[in-house]
Amino acid sequence: MTIDGKQIAQEIKEDLKEALQNSGKKLTIGIVQVGGDEVSARFVRQKRKFAEDLGVMVNSYDFSREITTGELRENILKICEKNNGVIVQLSLPPQIESRSVLDAIPREKDVDVLSSESIGRFVSGADDILPPVAGAIREILGRCGIDPSGKKAVVVGAGELVGKPSAVWLINRGATVSVLRANTPDISKYLKEADIIVSGTGKPGLISPEMIKNGATIIDAGTVVKAGRLLGDVDPAVAEKAFFFTPVPGGVGPLTVAMVFKNLVELNK
Amino acid sequence: MTIDGKQIAQEIKEDLKEALQNSGKKLTIGIVQVGGDEVSARFVRQKRKFAEDLGVMVNSYDFSREITTGELRENILKICEKNNGVIVQLSLPPQIESRSVLDAIPREKDVDVLSSESIGRFVSGADDILPPVAGAIREILGRCGIDPSGKKAVVVGAGELVGKPSAVWLINRGATVSVLRANTPDISKYLKEADIIVSGTGKPGLISPEMIKNGATIIDAGTVVKAGRLLGDVDPAVAEKAFFFTPVPGGVGPLTVAMVFKNLVELNK
Repeated sequence: MTIDGKQIAQEIKEDLKEALQNSGKKLTIGIVQVGGDEVSARFVRQKRKFAEDLGVMVNSYDFSREITTGELRENILKICEKNNGVIVQLSLPPQIESRSVLDAIPREKDVDVLSSESIGRFVSGADDILPPVAGAIREILGRCGIDPSGKKAVVVGAGELVGKPSAVWLINRGATVSVLRANTPDISKYLKEADIIVSGTGKPGLISPEMIKNGATIIDAGTVVKAGRLLGDVDPAVAEKAFFFTPVPGGVGPLTVAMVFKNLVELNK
Repeated sequence: MTIDGKQIAQEIKEDLKEALQNSGKKLTIGIVQVGGDEVSARFVRQKRKFAEDLGVMVNSYDFSREITTGELRENILKICEKNNGVIVQLSLPPQIESRSVLDAIPREKDVDVLSSESIGRFVSGADDILPPVAGAIREILGRCGIDPSGKKAVVVGAGELVGKPSAVWLINRGATVSVLRANTPDISKYLKEADIIVSGTGKPGLISPEMIKNGATIIDAGTVVKAGRLLGDVDPAVAEKAFFFTPVPGGVGPLTVAMVFKNLVELNK
């Protein structure tokens, strides 16, 4: 079965809208962009749209690719004072010390779970504010009735935005978790045994139907733009074999956007 | 080959002693104990001994098992002001909200990497201050000339003090990492393929020679006291088959103690 991430995101949007209307709160979100490529611009558009539908005011802050770490940090401190939540769209240019910049975001405004404090709280299982991709996986598995505890999960890729948070969340939820890399020689041996696969490598077609077992749940969190098309890591033909499968586009992407705003509402309760 | 953790810890101690003498700094460490069992009392004795050998002054703070989260947190804030580093010996009694207490330790005094901020910095690979068990693994692999990148690593157990930090460090260093649990059905299938095994379950004899491949490196970070003896997870007979093997006692234990003080010296540079 193919998961309709857009539809689920829409349902979450309605729930959040109701929660916000009931609370009477008017929230603002700051979106910080430094330069930015095609994929990040696409995500920023989606976030802006989601915010508008929700009645959350968006303040945009665009900086030049030449900005220094110190300048960006100072600006982010001010932006955090003026908004209820702040998104720093990644990745940042190479001269920027990302850690120093992201640690300027106070936990209560860190809707993307990017500061050290937020990451540490998430890793130690201290609270319910999850990195958006982990929130998306929780949402998908929850709606499919799948409890990760005792399951075999395979995470392909170990990046800061997809692989690592997905692996940590699955570990925290009691799964047996294998994290594979670009240099892992026999990835299909791991994939063949997996009950849950999360992929976030940006290599289209990396996972094909013959590599997975019947009835696996495949969460494709890969995103790369080729010739204007957004592509995931997974050959869509796995849908026939998988128990549940999230397509790209229209799977994890819209859900991670929804999770950013779920965090915003949660942090401002 | 069996790794002599005591000997390596002794060498680290000499290096740290020299570094401290050269700096002319007089450091103090606060050790907080709340109740405490046999294993933790044993570790506290080792830490006290290491500190004394190093010329680091130890201030001990013992609290009753009945203390509340708020009281303990207040005390730790004061203890942190008075010392260059603070150890909060785990585990804490069940009524205590550990996260709230551990987050009272400022990063620059958090020699055990237990606060959210410290954990987040470690997970994101931001700095060189590692949780002691991860520091011990880095030390062991470094001395054995083993680079985890591209290796298959298996971590047995996913606890906050051993399994999780070990897994994160191995992921950050580019290994393919599988985290196994008590409920993983076929642990020997994973173990048989592993180049590096880290075990931290507290189940003596869990890993036996026939479960590992020839030439694997086995790091036993299990610690349980039975009939007055400290036991690891690994049958010592693996030494014949393993490339490198750390015994219990005298392997990872003394090294984690050394790493706490390495962090103390590093944080006070």
